[in-house]
Amino acid sequence: MNGNGEEQTSFEIGIVVPKRAVKEGDEDSDCVEVLVDEFKKAGLIVERVLGISDEFIKLAAPLETLGRATAELQIKKPTHIGMDLPFVWDEIEAFVKQPDGSLFSWCERYQCYNHLLYGIVNRSKLVVTLKYDGRDIHWGLGESLLRRMESEGIVKQVFPLHDEIKRKQLLRSWALNWWDFTRQPIDDIYLYFGTKIAIYFAFLGMYTRWMLFPAAFVITLQLVDFRQSQLLTLPVFFIILISWAVLFFQFWKRKNAALLTRWQINYPVGLDLRYKLLDMEKFSLQSPLDLIKKLGTDKTQEKEAYQRYEWLGRLMRFRNDAIIILSIICLQLPFELAYAHLYEVIGSDLMKFGLTAVYLFAIQYFTKFGGRISAKFIMYENNENREYRADSLVYKVFGLYFMQSCIGVFYHALLHRNFKTLRQVLIRRLMVSQILENLLENSLPYPKNKDCESGSSTEKIQFTSRVEKEYLKPTYSAIVGEELEDGLFDDFLELALQFGMIMMFACAFPLAFAFSALNNLTEIRPDALKLLTMFKRPVPRAAATIGAWLNIFQFLMVMSICSDCVLLVCLYDQEGKWKLEPGLGAILVIEHILLLIKFGFSRIVPEEPAWVRANRMKNARQAQDVCSKQLLRSISGEKKMVDELKKDD
Amino acid sequence: MNGNGEEQTSFEIGIVVPKRAVKEGDEDSDCVEVLVDEFKKAGLIVERVLGISDEFIKLAAPLETLGRATAELQIKKPTHIGMDLPFVWDEIEAFVKQPDGSLFSWCERYQCYNHLLYGIVNRSKLVVTLKYDGRDIHWGLGESLLRRMESEGIVKQVFPLHDEIKRKQLLRSWALNWWDFTRQPIDDIYLYFGTKIAIYFAFLGMYTRWMLFPAAFVITLQLVDFRQSQLLTLPVFFIILISWAVLFFQFWKRKNAALLTRWQINYPVGLDLRYKLLDMEKFSLQSPLDLIKKLGTDKTQEKEAYQRYEWLGRLMRFRNDAIIILSIICLQLPFELAYAHLYEVIGSDLMKFGLTAVYLFAIQYFTKFGGRISAKFIMYENNENREYRADSLVYKVFGLYFMQSCIGVFYHALLHRNFKTLRQVLIRRLMVSQILENLLENSLPYPKNKDCESGSSTEKIQFTSRVEKEYLKPTYSAIVGEELEDGLFDDFLELALQFGMIMMFACAFPLAFAFSALNNLTEIRPDALKLLTMFKRPVPRAAATIGAWLNIFQFLMVMSICSDCVLLVCLYDQEGKWKLEPGLGAILVIEHILLLIKFGFSRIVPEEPAWVRANRMKNARQAQDVCSKQLLRSISGEKKMVDELKKDD
Repeated sequence: MNGNGEEQTSFEIGIVVPKRAVKEGDEDSDCVEVLVDEFKKAGLIVERVLGISDEFIKLAAPLETLGRATAELQIKKPTHIGMDLPFVWDEIEAFVKQPDGSLFSWCERYQCYNHLLYGIVNRSKLVVTLKYDGRDIHWGLGESLLRRMESEGIVKQVFPLHDEIKRKQLLRSWALNWWDFTRQPIDDIYLYFGTKIAIYFAFLGMYTRWMLFPAAFVITLQLVDFRQSQLLTLPVFFIILISWAVLFFQFWKRKNAALLTRWQINYPVGLDLRYKLLDMEKFSLQSPLDLIKKLGTDKTQEKEAYQRYEWLGRLMRFRNDAIIILSIICLQLPFELAYAHLYEVIGSDLMKFGLTAVYLFAIQYFTKFGGRISAKFIMYENNENREYRADSLVYKVFGLYFMQSCIGVFYHALLHRNFKTLRQVLIRRLMVSQILENLLENSLPYPKNKDCESGSSTEKIQFTSRVEKEYLKPTYSAIVGEELEDGLFDDFLELALQFGMIMMFACAFPLAFAFSALNNLTEIRPDALKLLTMFKRPVPRAAATIGAWLNIFQFLMVMSICSDCVLLVCLYDQEGKWKLEPGLGAILVIEHILLLIKFGFSRIVPEEPAWVRANRMKNARQAQDVCSKQLLRSISGEKKMVDELKKDD
Repeated sequence: MNGNGEEQTSFEIGIVVPKRAVKEGDEDSDCVEVLVDEFKKAGLIVERVLGISDEFIKLAAPLETLGRATAELQIKKPTHIGMDLPFVWDEIEAFVKQPDGSLFSWCERYQCYNHLLYGIVNRSKLVVTLKYDGRDIHWGLGESLLRRMESEGIVKQVFPLHDEIKRKQLLRSWALNWWDFTRQPIDDIYLYFGTKIAIYFAFLGMYTRWMLFPAAFVITLQLVDFRQSQLLTLPVFFIILISWAVLFFQFWKRKNAALLTRWQINYPVGLDLRYKLLDMEKFSLQSPLDLIKKLGTDKTQEKEAYQRYEWLGRLMRFRNDAIIILSIICLQLPFELAYAHLYEVIGSDLMKFGLTAVYLFAIQYFTKFGGRISAKFIMYENNENREYRADSLVYKVFGLYFMQSCIGVFYHALLHRNFKTLRQVLIRRLMVSQILENLLENSLPYPKNKDCESGSSTEKIQFTSRVEKEYLKPTYSAIVGEELEDGLFDDFLELALQFGMIMMFACAFPLAFAFSALNNLTEIRPDALKLLTMFKRPVPRAAATIGAWLNIFQFLMVMSICSDCVLLVCLYDQEGKWKLEPGLGAILVIEHILLLIKFGFSRIVPEEPAWVRANRMKNARQAQDVCSKQLLRSISGEKKMVDELKKDD
């Protein structure tokens, strides 16, 4: 990462085609050969590698090719005055460079590759007939060759390649850096993986660092043996905890804003990225616009069309949400309760074990099925872009998992009102999740990876097998809806469920904080290693915040206020009298105070640091100073022309 | 309002100086004469009117003078491509005109007048000695003449003048239009009074219109005599009510956004006007910037300076809020409780009457004193502009009044748990406020105003007296902090207290909705009349939303969820057992559901209509399309120059 990252162009995209023998005369019309020729014509650097069972086409793009594609796509890039402007090759000096000195971010490069690869269309006036293994393939007019070959099954996969040099650098400075787990080279992660993954790791790091405070607190409490004064310390602990959580999320928002400013990513006020993302992908709200063109230019009709479209979309989404919520309550809830009840009723340990196995088996299918249905539903919503759709899915699937992981514990907490068994259940749950997780993550074959690295740049054959090895690695994708979400979904889900579990039952089992702090500390590096060695390089995503997950964490915070109050009531009301004595009244008061803290505190800490704001203000002013004269002239010129035309009519 | 409102320039500013005899030889150096000369030199149209005891200088500004001042102030105005750009006289065609065809809004005109009037400074190299009534007045170098004369007491007042023609039009179409009280000519109000007042009346109109639903609902309930099924209908009514309030405020935000779009006022996403207003007034966050200049251009030091400044400001504000809240709790609460208690204890009606009189007298001084202290406090906060300061005051003073008006009722509700007396107290309070209000508003001498209008454009003498009459009218200002808030404060306070009262005790006295709907219906026109006839024309304000009041209304909504639940508990728990039986448990559940509705529903209705958003998007795109090329060239040109300079070094 030394100043001129763009000059040694590395291969970043791999295409997989089956190995086959090409007949002598067919070379001109063999579709793979044509594809490679077209790639070369498009200005890409091509390297072909023969693997054991497949052939790999590795692609790299020189700066010029990327620049041309960016200009064609009219991608907006931040300039030195802080405004995002469409890229123009001639004015390259005006655009801000990435932290490592390269001009384009990984996300932009990926967009360009996509444009270049799928932009190879038949520009001649005839249908071109190509050969493949004796078969004839008709390349229609204006049809994308790559897409055609994908649908014919000739191109097995197009996937982003790891950059060996940078990957090894990251391995050393990040995944295999066994010192201060919460410190991470976020900038390098951003450069290599894009915003979304970098933001996830920044969040994970900060969350873990903040988690150490309550963990230390509960350990101290445990050492002092607070059992004697439990009735007093628990509410105090509870209030401190909620304040801690509220402050954490406010400071996270600030950190997010600061990170984006450091990476020169412009974002709108309040981190509301809807307006930002609309620029990136196609604005699908144009559908009513098309309608409007038919209707003519009547202003009120335009307004009505928009309103109809807007409310229809809302209704659609509301319906979907209602269906999901109802099916969770009507189908999942009885199932979970039945399991929890049976588990309590059954005496023998063996039976219990069997029941749990059946349950785990059933629930796995259940959640997968639910996730698929949610993904289907989302297709019918008019969400305006990919990140929006993803958020909608996140909410729905989180609902499923949340219900699954918490309802049993709730059952224990409320029906038995026995803190001891509740604690046991919690420990079991946390332990099980930790063990399962560690099993998964320790199945990473550390030494095997070491092998693969050591021989990374020696001989050709080793090199060949590396591409193939990468191809054989799994894609970084979520359990549900591969096509919609990447693996971050699982990691966030895990974090959110953990957060929910420890916060909601904080009063029953404060030590959970220590457990989960330890868990998170030991999770950062394996997560990093997983990304760098286990999977294909993930497709970069444009999202610049943690999106829907922030709302989910906030929701969990409110839930935990309520549920912890219920637990406190149980604690004070051991005899089950349910009498609203001063103690219980005090708990109600505490609940309301905490809700106030939740919704009031967030106003005390502003979401955006003052320097970020000042920076943005300066930028906005500069931009307007530069262009206002020019703009005004062109506007008034246009206005005059229009007026004159009107006079002529 | 016929297409060319700017051409007949009307007198919009009045200056009052005492009537005096000027000696023959002193005319050249008489300071009033000099002032008038300077006004004329500045391009203003001056008319001098002799009143009974004072002399009035009426000022008007032709379009050109205004344009020059606007350009000097670099006021940003919306252009045809939807972007705000600094005004330039040559490119006048590029700027959007007001709905009545004039170029400048009243708020902009007022800013220009201020700039022109107070911008008359001594540009010579000597201190000029002016005469006034024999006294010598030394006009220092670079000193503003008007300010000097104000401090000497020669200029008694500078105030905006009513525009007779437009005022009469508004009287006819608005204040004296006794048909469909909720329909108001909002656009004309905006043109005449500016954004803030127009937004208030739009809010009042919408609030009243929406209020008719619950009013009709409670009247129906009353007619059906729901007393038998009270235990069932009350919670249902309560849930409907909260949903109604949540929806109302969401739809109000939409309406606000739509209004601003109609008036071509650009605002940032989420109606967060902080960022907008920073442009309007001086950006006082520059103080750390000054500091930074001294420190040099070190980035981290800059960041630290900003952070220190930011947190110091927060701390300051937090301290002030804490002092206010503590003093309300420690001083006001015991006082109010003492009154409520005494009122209950005392038997005779005469004593009660006397006590109430003493209380009213004391409370008036108390709130005034509290308001003054709050205003003082705010001076020490580093609020970034006037609207911010005003918001800070609104929160503090509202706290005072809220405590004052509700604590007594709470006392009755909670300690006596007698719905009948609570209802009586509520009726008394609502009646008293209505009667007091009507007394105040009916003290408007309707016929007297009629007089003054009829003779508005007949003879010179009548005309003279009109200016003087206007001068003698009171300023449109709030009870507390005249210098910080205008009369809208009182009106909003009244609305908010009413809203709080009827919502918080909705379950005890649903009919209050019918009362207050009636009250609001009859308040719109008198409010309008008050503004048009009773007061001087108010100084226009830049605020484009209802600001702090929205937050207060939201807060009241949450408060009312809690307090109504307490009332329901009292209702179900007549015997005072405080046993958490199913009924009481259900109320707790209802409370949580309602809180969920409050914080969840607001997500269902977007704050900004889709067409407004589409409009904004279109504008943003257009602006960038026009200027991106030019901008890029200038940025990269600058960059190259800087690079070359660096090389030379």
